[in-house]
This record gives sequence, C-alpha cells and structure tokens, in this order.
Amino acid sequence: MKTIAGGITSPKGFQAAGIHCGIKKKKLLDLALVVSERDGPIAGVFTNNRVAAAPVVIDRLHLQQGIGRAIIVNSGNANACTGAEGLAAAEEMATLVARRLDTDLRKVYVGSTGVIGQPLPIECIRAGIPALMQRIRRTGGTEAARAILTTDLRVKQIAMRGTVAGRSVTIGGMAKGSGMIHPNMATMLAYLTTDAAISQPALQKALSAAVDQSFNCISVDGDTSTNDTVLCLANGLADHAPIQEGTETFVTFHRMLLQTCLALALRICRDGEGVTKIVKIHVTGADTSAAAKQVANTVATSNLVKTALFGEDANWGRVMAAIGRSGVPVDPSRIDLSFDKVAMVKNGMGLGAQAERRIATVFRKKEFTIHIDLGQGSAQSHVWTTDLSYDYVKINASYRS
Amino acid sequence: MKTIAGGITSPKGFQAAGIHCGIKKKKLLDLALVVSERDGPIAGVFTNNRVAAAPVVIDRLHLQQGIGRAIIVNSGNANACTGAEGLAAAEEMATLVARRLDTDLRKVYVGSTGVIGQPLPIECIRAGIPALMQRIRRTGGTEAARAILTTDLRVKQIAMRGTVAGRSVTIGGMAKGSGMIHPNMATMLAYLTTDAAISQPALQKALSAAVDQSFNCISVDGDTSTNDTVLCLANGLADHAPIQEGTETFVTFHRMLLQTCLALALRICRDGEGVTKIVKIHVTGADTSAAAKQVANTVATSNLVKTALFGEDANWGRVMAAIGRSGVPVDPSRIDLSFDKVAMVKNGMGLGAQAERRIATVFRKKEFTIHIDLGQGSAQSHVWTTDLSYDYVKINASYRS
Repeated sequence: MKTIAGGITSPKGFQAAGIHCGIKKKKLLDLALVVSERDGPIAGVFTNNRVAAAPVVIDRLHLQQGIGRAIIVNSGNANACTGAEGLAAAEEMATLVARRLDTDLRKVYVGSTGVIGQPLPIECIRAGIPALMQRIRRTGGTEAARAILTTDLRVKQIAMRGTVAGRSVTIGGMAKGSGMIHPNMATMLAYLTTDAAISQPALQKALSAAVDQSFNCISVDGDTSTNDTVLCLANGLADHAPIQEGTETFVTFHRMLLQTCLALALRICRDGEGVTKIVKIHVTGADTSAAAKQVANTVATSNLVKTALFGEDANWGRVMAAIGRSGVPVDPSRIDLSFDKVAMVKNGMGLGAQAERRIATVFRKKEFTIHIDLGQGSAQSHVWTTDLSYDYVKINASYRS
Repeated sequence: MKTIAGGITSPKGFQAAGIHCGIKKKKLLDLALVVSERDGPIAGVFTNNRVAAAPVVIDRLHLQQGIGRAIIVNSGNANACTGAEGLAAAEEMATLVARRLDTDLRKVYVGSTGVIGQPLPIECIRAGIPALMQRIRRTGGTEAARAILTTDLRVKQIAMRGTVAGRSVTIGGMAKGSGMIHPNMATMLAYLTTDAAISQPALQKALSAAVDQSFNCISVDGDTSTNDTVLCLANGLADHAPIQEGTETFVTFHRMLLQTCLALALRICRDGEGVTKIVKIHVTGADTSAAAKQVANTVATSNLVKTALFGEDANWGRVMAAIGRSGVPVDPSRIDLSFDKVAMVKNGMGLGAQAERRIATVFRKKEFTIHIDLGQGSAQSHVWTTDLSYDYVKINASYRS
C-alpha cells in the first residue's frame, strides 16, 4: 500500500468537477460533483448532532437503499435550520443531478457546508448544473476538492493504492474542515471513492471502523456541527471477487481505508483554524478505553491547555487539572505525565525545575505527544488536538463578515 | 437588605491584612489573613476536581470540626500536585497562624492560588507571618482582597447589610478568579464573613445552596481548577437567637448570602480574562432542570459561540449547533431562540433577514440574554458566559512568563 498523487478521481471510473455557481459572494468555487461511471454500494457516517442539516437527512434516507452513483456538494451555505424548504432544496440538488445522469434520485447524495440558517440559494445551483455536468472529467478531482472548502487554507485530497484480492485497488478522498473539528465529526465533510468490489454491509463496517479511528480522534475546538458527513462509494471496477466481512481481504481493505481517513484527518487538523501546533494526547493505564478517551478528550478540549500550547508555556499543571475534572475517578497519586518521553510528573508530583526546562524544549516543537499514564488499568486511547491561537479567535469572530 | 461600602471586615469582629511576603516575583501583595475576634461555625464548598490542591485537603479535614477563627491565603503558588511536602506546607500555614492566635490549628483555614506543581515557598510565608499579624486591623479588608488576586484586573469585594431576627446583620466577602471560571467553581476563591448567629449545619446548608445558584452559574472557559474554595465564617456577634433551618429567619439569611455570592460571581465574570461581554444563557421548556442546565452549559462553553460574541457576529446557527450536540434529546422543530426578547428562531427555523438585523443590534450590547425555549417541558436553568477574545488567548498563553 502506498500514497499516490491524486484524489477522488484516482480510482477507476470516477470523474469530478468544481465550479462557481454564485453561492459564495467572491468568485470562489462553491459547487462540486463526483460521478461514478456505474452504480455501486455506498456507505456513510453522519453527525450525531440532534440539529441535523437537510442534506444529512436526505443522505440518511438514500442510504437505506445503499446504492450510489453521484455526490453533489455545495459550500457557502450549510442548508441547516432551514425547515421544510431546506429539505426540498436538498432533494432538488439530488434530482437535478439524477435527471442529467438519467438515474434514480436516491442514488445521488448531497452535502452542504457554510453558514447555518440562511435559505439555500437553490436557483444558483439550478443555473449551475449544465456547466457542472459539462465540466466533469477524470482530472477534475482537485477542483472538486477546492469547491467544498470554506475557511480551509488548503485543498485536502489523497489517493492510496494497494493490492486487494490480487488486483490493484485505489482509494481516493477529499475532505473539508478546519474549524469545529472534534470527535464525532464536527463540521467536516469527507468523500471517499474506490474501485474495490465490496458488499454494502462490508463497506459500511469498514468505513464506520475507519472513521472511529481517524476523524473521531481529532479535536480542534470541541464543537460538533450540523452537517458532518463521511461517504464512501465503491464502484467495483477493480474487477475482483467482492470483499466479504471476516476475511483477510477485508482486513487489507479496512487498513487501506483507515490510512486514507487518517491522512485526511491529520490534514484537517494541520489546517485547523489558526493552528500552529498538533499535539497527540495519549492516555494509558486506564480501567477502560472509554475512561481513557474521556480523559484524552477533556485535556484535548481544555482552553487553558490549548492556550498554553500556543504560548509554548510548559504549564503541565493545566494538564493535571484537566485530568482531574474529566469525570473519570482517577487517583492523582498514581498519575505519570511525560512530554515526548521526557518525564515531568511521577505519582502525581512534579519532578522539578530540571524536568521543566527539558519539557520547555518539547513545547517548542510543531508536533509532540503528551503521555498520561493513569496507573490504574491497561486500557488506552488517544486523540490529536491543536493549540488555541489569536488567529483562531480572529477567524471565528469574523466568519460571516 | 442593601449593599454597603466595605468587604470582608465589614461584619462586627473581623480584622484582616495583606502583605507581600516574596512568593510573587514583583512586589505585589501575595499573603492575606482574615481573623475573627472569636470562634464561630464555618461552612465550605470545594472543587470537585479529583486533583485537589493541598489547602483543599487541609480545609476539608478541618471542616470536620466546623469551627473557624482565621483564614490565611497566599497567591502566586497553588500548592497543587506537590505531594506530601505540599500537605505539610499547607498545614504549616495553619499552624503558624494558630500559634500566634494561641488557638487550635484546626480552627485555621488555608487557601492557595497560582501556578500548579511548584513547591510552595513556605519559608517566605514563615518569614512574613510577624508582619502579617502586626498588620491586621478593622480596615484591612481591601488589602486582603488584593493579596488573593492572580491575573485578576480588579479587587472584588462586597458587603451587604440587612435585618435578621430583629438585628442588623452584615455579610462581607472577597473573591479571586478570572480565568478557568466554570460551573463547579473553577479556580475561584471566595471568602465570606458574617456576624450572624447560626448553627454550623444551617450555615453549611445556606452556603451550599447559595454557591449552587451563583458561583456555579458562571462560565468563562469551561475549565475547573484544583483549588476552588468558598468558605463562610460566622462569629455570632450580631447577638441574636441562632438561626435555625426551616425558619423564616433562615430564608432571609439565605437570600442575603445568595445576593452576596451572586454579586461576587458576576464581578468575577466581568473581570474574566479578556472579557468584553457577559451573556446570560437562559434555557426554558426543558423536561428537567438538569437537561436545561446541560443545554445552557454546552452553549456557554462553545468556543464558536464565544468567538461569535466577541466578534459581535449574530451567528445564531452556532447556538443551534451547540444545542444539538448537548447530549439532551431535543427536538429541533420545537426550538425557539430569542436575543433580548427579539425572536430569531421559531420552531427550529430562522425568521429571516429582518430578524437578523434586529439581533445584530443586540449583539453589540455589553450584556444581553440568549433565551432558548426547547418547547418540551416546563423546567429551566440559566448560566452566565463571556466572550472569547484575543486577550483571553494572550493572557493565558503567557500566564507563567
């Protein structure tokens, strides 16, 4: 398995395009389309926010059938908190594409990202469809990846190639997300394509597991959005015997999918709003992996920890305080803390000025690991977090202006 | 009941002092003492952080006896994560005062606030005790209030006077806290004194209820600290029949104590690190008050909501998104949202551009209310929050330098 140049159109039989249809005020791309040359199973993972956007409702509905042909995504408007009209607009997006492809509307999936609560200007999308359809091509992956961005600084796409069932199989992906990134997929869109042949249930299982170990392990600001979506469409053009659950082939495919998701997740993290650092919070010695995750998430979302990371202030006391308020019944006198393997706390006590000077060096790195050993059990978990900078405040204070 | 000038020494029989003993590098006050001329019942509420600082451990121990005579507090060092030596240092602080007052060490309470994980320089406190004792006086309240501050911009003190059981009763208070303020009392110290006569159990009951409705309703950054403490010492010098639980006199006293705590809590909020706005999140129509509180806290601690407040961006969609991810099973189509009584969302849908223009005016106020009606039941709750500004990041990124 290796990373290759490319993205969403790297697997066999996929085409894409991105255009400006007028949703964004500036002349930026705001409408993307991905089309497979034939139907295939599609799997999805969505936000757990109770206030789900219209496209999420439509995709969940279409996923009951589980067959995909195309995905249309707009940026600049989230189509969330828009009521019945919003649902009608999301469905019309699917219908417009389905008609052009002469297929069933339930095979077309929809995504939206942008400002919440404003009516989706469906007339822009309606008017843009002819140009969008005309533009789809094998090399359109990058512009599609660009058209789904909002405050993102960089295009995020990836392609992986490996051998599955004796054939060359490719997975491509594109993602959007920089603010509101948090476990449980806050404001993040990721679309994956593959030419692997696989049953829908096996694809769903592989995707759910991969998302859990990648997108759900990154945290920028603790907020989760109304629109989060990960979809994976598999058209089977690699032409091998379909992958079945519980086989070695399934394990290989899942590993490839996980690597693709992880690469996209870390790119989202690095591109986080105002991010200058990425820090892995690794918790070991917990009684359960849920407890480990809870501690990791509490540290990862602490504004005091995140500002200390930005300020390169080796304020390990804030890490201890965050562990203590996580809700997990930790025993402070058993906690060890180290920063990139430099021990700072042993049995709940600071190791003094020399250790502080050594970890101060670690805090100046762009990426490092905070290792928390709770000293209670053998379960562990990890999460990646980012710092909280002036630019985070700046970008988010003026998002709509 | 009315607010009067003064603070911790306004009730009869209390003296106080504040000095610089050398814990802080700059020549700022860093050691405070409050002494009652006679013993009295004392009540306390402490952090629920599992990593509790040494002074919290000592105070909890002393509170088993429930009698108080003096309170000594240092700033500049939290004496947290300092192990057995830290406990010994906290106990020595109490012992040093107890010897001078010729009383039992268990009648002396201890507080610390500042950097976590560095040994408390007990030698500074030891050397400072003679000067501190010499300086205590009836007018020492303000300097004591100054000596417990860390990043606070302003001294926070208050005094209330009212009639209880036919006598004039005074409650005085001082508080410290600006960062890490959150329900469950994150890094906040508050000391209250009163000349009321009351039993220890009644005092504890009144204090616990008052803290729950004041300090536990403010939120600056969602972090809770290792050192939070509220103590209330009652010396009975107002000379009336002791207040008993379940009487009208108790209700009067509790109301006075609540007003004192609420005034201090809102001063902490206004003095929050980099705070430019205070916003009340009022949730109604919930099935239970716990559910209402959970929604209020999720909105109050959302960094996206808090940066929108700072930017005066009427981005109500972020409020909806925070409600949706609160973990409470809300029904989006029943949610109403208004800003200082200006309706913006009805049954989960935005009310359009005109409403947006009206709430934009509300967002420019220094203080306003976000009213969330979940439309499900009749329970409610509220919490005060603050914005997230450049200055918050600046102050917290460079706290120790």
